Order: sequence, then C-alpha cells, then structure tokens
Amino acid sequence: MKSYLDMTKEELAAEYAAVSREYKDLKSIKRSLDMSRGKPNPVQLDLSMGLLGQDPSALIVTRKGTDVRNYGELAGVDECKQLFADILGLEQKNIIMGGQSSLNLMYDAVVRAILLGVYKGSRPWGQQGQIKFLCPVPGYDRHFAICQEFGIEMINIPMSATGPDMDQVKRYVESDPLVKGVWCVPKYSNPTGVTYSDDTVRAFAALKPAADDFRIFWDNAYVVHGFEEEDDRLLNIFDACKEYGSEDMVYEFASTSKITFSGAGLAVLAASEGNVKFLLRQMGVATIGYDKINQLRHVHFFKSAQGVREHMKKQAALVKPKFDCVLYTLAEQIAPRGIGKWITPHGGYFVAFEGLPGTASRCVALCKEAGLVLTPAGAPFPYGKDPDDSVIRIAPTYPDIPSLAAAIQLFCVAARLAALETLGAKG
Amino acid sequence: MKSYLDMTKEELAAEYAAVSREYKDLKSIKRSLDMSRGKPNPVQLDLSMGLLGQDPSALIVTRKGTDVRNYGELAGVDECKQLFADILGLEQKNIIMGGQSSLNLMYDAVVRAILLGVYKGSRPWGQQGQIKFLCPVPGYDRHFAICQEFGIEMINIPMSATGPDMDQVKRYVESDPLVKGVWCVPKYSNPTGVTYSDDTVRAFAALKPAADDFRIFWDNAYVVHGFEEEDDRLLNIFDACKEYGSEDMVYEFASTSKITFSGAGLAVLAASEGNVKFLLRQMGVATIGYDKINQLRHVHFFKSAQGVREHMKKQAALVKPKFDCVLYTLAEQIAPRGIGKWITPHGGYFVAFEGLPGTASRCVALCKEAGLVLTPAGAPFPYGKDPDDSVIRIAPTYPDIPSLAAAIQLFCVAARLAALETLGAKG
Repeated sequence: MKSYLDMTKEELAAEYAAVSREYKDLKSIKRSLDMSRGKPNPVQLDLSMGLLGQDPSALIVTRKGTDVRNYGELAGVDECKQLFADILGLEQKNIIMGGQSSLNLMYDAVVRAILLGVYKGSRPWGQQGQIKFLCPVPGYDRHFAICQEFGIEMINIPMSATGPDMDQVKRYVESDPLVKGVWCVPKYSNPTGVTYSDDTVRAFAALKPAADDFRIFWDNAYVVHGFEEEDDRLLNIFDACKEYGSEDMVYEFASTSKITFSGAGLAVLAASEGNVKFLLRQMGVATIGYDKINQLRHVHFFKSAQGVREHMKKQAALVKPKFDCVLYTLAEQIAPRGIGKWITPHGGYFVAFEGLPGTASRCVALCKEAGLVLTPAGAPFPYGKDPDDSVIRIAPTYPDIPSLAAAIQLFCVAARLAALETLGAKG
Repeated sequence: MKSYLDMTKEELAAEYAAVSREYKDLKSIKRSLDMSRGKPNPVQLDLSMGLLGQDPSALIVTRKGTDVRNYGELAGVDECKQLFADILGLEQKNIIMGGQSSLNLMYDAVVRAILLGVYKGSRPWGQQGQIKFLCPVPGYDRHFAICQEFGIEMINIPMSATGPDMDQVKRYVESDPLVKGVWCVPKYSNPTGVTYSDDTVRAFAALKPAADDFRIFWDNAYVVHGFEEEDDRLLNIFDACKEYGSEDMVYEFASTSKITFSGAGLAVLAASEGNVKFLLRQMGVATIGYDKINQLRHVHFFKSAQGVREHMKKQAALVKPKFDCVLYTLAEQIAPRGIGKWITPHGGYFVAFEGLPGTASRCVALCKEAGLVLTPAGAPFPYGKDPDDSVIRIAPTYPDIPSLAAAIQLFCVAARLAALETLGAKG
C-alpha cells in the first residue's frame, strides 16, 4: 500500500474516486453509530451489579459505629477512605470522599479557589486579575469547559509520549504569578492514552511556582484502568513531592465512574493533610456530608484495593478487544497511507487520532453525514479550537463490537477521503 | 405559680436559692444529653430501610428506558422528577434532582449567581459591589453561614407568627438593587415552626425588586413534615407568582434528608422552566449527572406522593411525642413564670424558645455545664449574634424520650436560673 504523500496527482485522483465510491456505499447503509463519548457499555456496568442488592443490615453502621444513614462524616467513612488511600498510595488523612462526580469536585475546587482562596489567608484567585491555566493538549474537554465558564485564560501545552512539555510548563509556572493551575490526566491520558513518565511527574513535583497559590489538578481518572497484561507505571506524585516539600501544590482526583457505575459511583479528592483540613472547612459550608451508604456499598463490594484491581481485570477483558479492533483497523487502513498517527494506549478510554492538518473537522462531518457520531473536532482543545484541525478523539467502549467495527471502518474511509481532499485529489 | 416578673425581691431571692439547689442536684447526675441538631433518631431512619435491599434488576432502567447506571440525565430521571413535582405542586419541567443535599444546591446557586449571574446576560452578583441578603430571624444557621462565607451582608428581618415582616422585606427589596436574595423556610420554619400565611406568600410573589437578578431562596425543607392530624397549609408560591408573572424570582429547595436518610437521600431544586434551563446549562459544566440509582430507589420505595405522605405519618408518630414532651414541660415550667415564649409548631424539627433578653447564652452555658448540649445561643442569627440574646433553638428529635424528658427538665431549670440572675435575684 502506498502512502498518499508519495502519490502522483493521477494516483491521488484514482484513489479519490475509489474512496468516494466506498464512502457513498457506506453512507447508503444509513447506519446509526456513536464513538463520541467515553461511556462504559452496559455489559461493563453489569460487572458491578453486586453493588446493589446487598444485605441492608450491613449498610447501616461503619466499623467505628457511625450510623451512615444519618448526617455527618463530611470526609467520608474511614473504611472507604482507606480503600481509596490504598488505590492511590496515600493515607486516610489525605482522602475526602465527595459525592459521585470527580468533575464536580474539580469544578468546586476551582470555584472555591476563585471565591475564597486555596489556603488560610490566601487571596482569592478571583481578585488577582486575569488568571490562567495550563492545558496540555489534546486534553479533556470538560476540564477546559470549567476554565472557559469562569473566564480563566487557557494556555496550550503540547503533549508528547511522556506527558506535557515540561520545559514549557516550568517556564510558565515559574515566571507568571497569574498561572494558577494546570490540568493533568497523568495515566492513560484523555485522549492520548499517554502515561506520564517518572521524569515528568518529578518535574511537576519540582515546580517552584511564581504564584504561592498555584495548584496542579491531577485528574487520575484512569488509575486502575489498564487493559493490558502489564499496567503502565505512574509515579505517585505525592511521593515525588515529598522530596521538594511541595505536597500542598497538588489536588488529586479519581472516581469509580468507570469502575462501577458512571451514574452512581464515588468520587474522591486526595491532597496533603493541610489541604484536606482547609478544604473540609470550606466544604462544610456547602454540605453536611455526602452519600455514606454508597460508600459502604463500594467497600463491601470490593473489600480491598486488590478487589478493585481484580474487578478491573474483568473490565479490561471487555474493553481490550474494542481497542484492539480500533487499533488494528487504524494500523491496517491508515498507517501505511501516511495520513494519521496515534499512540497505542495500554489503558483508559480513548485513542487520539492525529490526521493530516486541516482534516479533522471534515472527517467528523463526513462521518456524521454517514451516520457515525464522533466527538466534535476541536473538543480536546481549549475553546474547542484545534490549531491544526488534526485531532479526533475516538471512544471505543460504548458500542458493541460489530457496531464498533463498522464505525471504525467508516471512520477510516472518511479520514482517507478528508486527507485526499486536503491533498488536492478532488478534481 | 407566680410570674417571676411579679415577684418581690425577697420572693426572687428565695426562688433563686431553690432553683440553684435544683440545678446543683441535676448537675451532680453528670448526664450526657444533646438537643443541639435537627437529626432524625435511628428509629426514624429504620422506617426507610425498604429503600435498601431492593431487587437490583429494578434499579437499572427508567420507564423510558434510560440505563441509570450510566452517565446522563442531569436533571434527573422523569419518574423521580414527577414524584417531587407532585409533592411540590409543580410539573416535571420545573424540577432538577440534584445530589442528596439541598444545602449544597443552595450553596451552588449562590456561588453561580456570584460568579456567573442568574439569567442569560445578567451581571454576576460578584461584580456589583457589596451585595446583601435578607435574613428572617431567627432562621437557619447554615443559610447564614453561606452568606458569611462569601461576604454577603445580612440584614435581619423579624419573624412573626405569619412569617417575615413583609413591610420590611418589601421596603428593602424594592428600594435597594444590592439586595439580591432572601432566605425563607416557609413551612414549619427553622427554628420558629411558623408556616407562612397566604398573605405572606402572596406578598413575596408580588415583590417588584429593585434588582432584576433578585432571587427568593424558598427552602421548603419541611414540606411534608407535619406531625399533627391537620397539616399546615402553605400556599404554593409558584401559583401565587403566576398572578404577578414573577415565577423567575423563586428558587425552591427540598430534600428527603428528614424523610428517608439524612446521609443518603435526595435533594431537589424547583424553579420556573426558564430558570431550570438556565441552571442546567450552568450545572452541566460541573457534572454529567447526579446519582440516578438512588432516584429510582426512592421512586420504587414511595411509589407516589401519597406514598411519601403515608410514610411521613409514620415519622409523625415518632416525632410528635417528643415535641409534646418538650412543649408540655415548657408550658408547665416556663409559661406560668413569665420568662419565656414560643410558638407551638405543627411540624418541622424545632422549637424556638425565646427567653428574657440577655439570658440565652447564660442558659446554654448552664445546660452545658450540667451535661446538656444545645445549639449555641445566637446560632439562628446572622453572624451568630442574637441582638437580644434571648433565642434558643430546641431540637427534640434525636434523643430518645427518657433522655429528652431529662434534657428539657434540665433546660427549664437552667432557663429559670438564667432568668433569675437577669432579674437581679442573685445576692
């Protein structure tokens, strides 16, 4: 198979004619396919049905005797904090169990920083002028939406196979006191699938921010979401921070949205002991406590962090074939034609397809026209603007395998057509 | 029994000596009693055990077929919205099911108003200078804590047996564009037990605020919490608003914290269709959705609004004897001595005891010394400052009846002692 980049004008024209026919045929099937959002498939959700139907009498009191049906325990019940501490390599004192949406915890953390500040006596971010966040790109659209909502200026930082460009991160963070935060998905990153290298994590821990109220938003959404035999290694950032005394700089987030139920799981905020105390004081004004029964449900269901890891092996068995399907098709259809690249993820929920510059929107539009919904081109970038219009986020988990196979096949045809158009193959 | 106010100096001295002895005796028992917070007793929580242990297969899909285990349905599942719409006399389109803490919904509503504004194109409250909230007093301490947290100036509005002084409310709201909100607990008010009269509700609906972004925070926390045969009537404020076209002025809140589980219930925000749309747009940046399985649990458990009302009769059977105990003892020990008054509530969670001016802190301190924890004097007022130092919030639900009887007995002795001190009976 020849790379499109090496084709003559005539070859391109012939290829364009052939791919156009192929696209037309696929379009005529009038499919209704969706690879747009990182949602678990119902079969994955079935794995957690043991969360429901537990003996009610086991859901009343904690080990230390607190009635979880009543008010209180803002930080969560001890055994649940311990479970997540074990998963994250931390201690109970570092853990706040907060509702069921880690996105909400991040949003709230930003809101409180804007209105109230991040440590006792600190000036609220909102009183310091035009504040900024660093945004490794491509990244998670909902992170960027929070910044956009509150008028926080976003600065793109390029991602490589080892994580964000740390020279740029360091330069911005250490020179500009208006840079208040950075969004990170350090493991099986959304959408690139990259796990930050030890050097990257250490470089984060070693930052000496110009702002004393700078915070790293460490969204460890995919901490136990490997689907290969070997899990990617992510250095524990709090361990790295110890060396530099920088533990207060990090807010870590995780959730069970893609472990148990996306619609009824648990979310967690992990931080230094000082930050936890300060945050609980602030959070105590908003609520008396989160759902503690659901915390006990999860504790009884998993029993231990090892239980979570075993559960995730079952998830992996369902998810990996879908990634294989996508990656195999891309390798076969796109790679030899030289019109796209991607990193092969070992976990997480996405593949980030990088096509030729200027082709992403067109490819998404072609897919849509033929009945396949994709995440909008640009979505993984601040303000929805991909400067090169080249990245498309592929989310393989939700469709069943036959639909997925049809979807990725269609995607490849659309990507080829968009590439050919860009290369001037069209008449 | 003679009123303390009619006693001679000698009579007061004799009474002081007698009550001091009584207090000393009670203190020597070294009790550990608590009437401080409006928490349900575990027996009340037992009434809702049917929420747990439901058939898991019934907790997967909504009537329209949405898998509640997955992401989505930010506003909540239809059947749950319908349940709360029926309770509040509204329609599904007016309802947002939001997590499990109505306090959190109120906090978030204030935060978003401060940072983002309350309708499309409105200026955020936070950009308009020193904004203010009206606070009917005595009121709910956690409402006032939200204002204090964000530096919102609080203005006391006196409560009467029909609700807040609406002349004052009207004057402030209609003359000052910096008055942005008012806290209301319109039924079985915390802590007075008052239910707003129809005239009061209509006067709220008829307000013509100087600020076009003024909002009434209508915390209908005790909407189905009557414990007498006859429930207090509260006019539906949205019905009243229809007459004035003022539906957008009201945010209504409720929760099942004191219906099912305080630690794992449901919270609801009700508003005009326009407000709901606007709020959902804002809330969608913070989260993809709240716990929908818990919504289905509640729907299956109650079946209908009538089911909720029948459930609340069981709650009433547990709660009423406790109020009877408190009210009977107060009527016997305090009323004839002329040193305190209160409104007899027909529902809710509190009795607001109004002692002689200058006695509340002393009474609370005396109780504490003798082993009874009360809500701090001043708590039901903005900034924790009761201008007359006369109001004490009594929360009868949590203790069992023997403890409660001992607690209110001790309370009466402490109240008498504090009153006698104030009246100069002490040496």
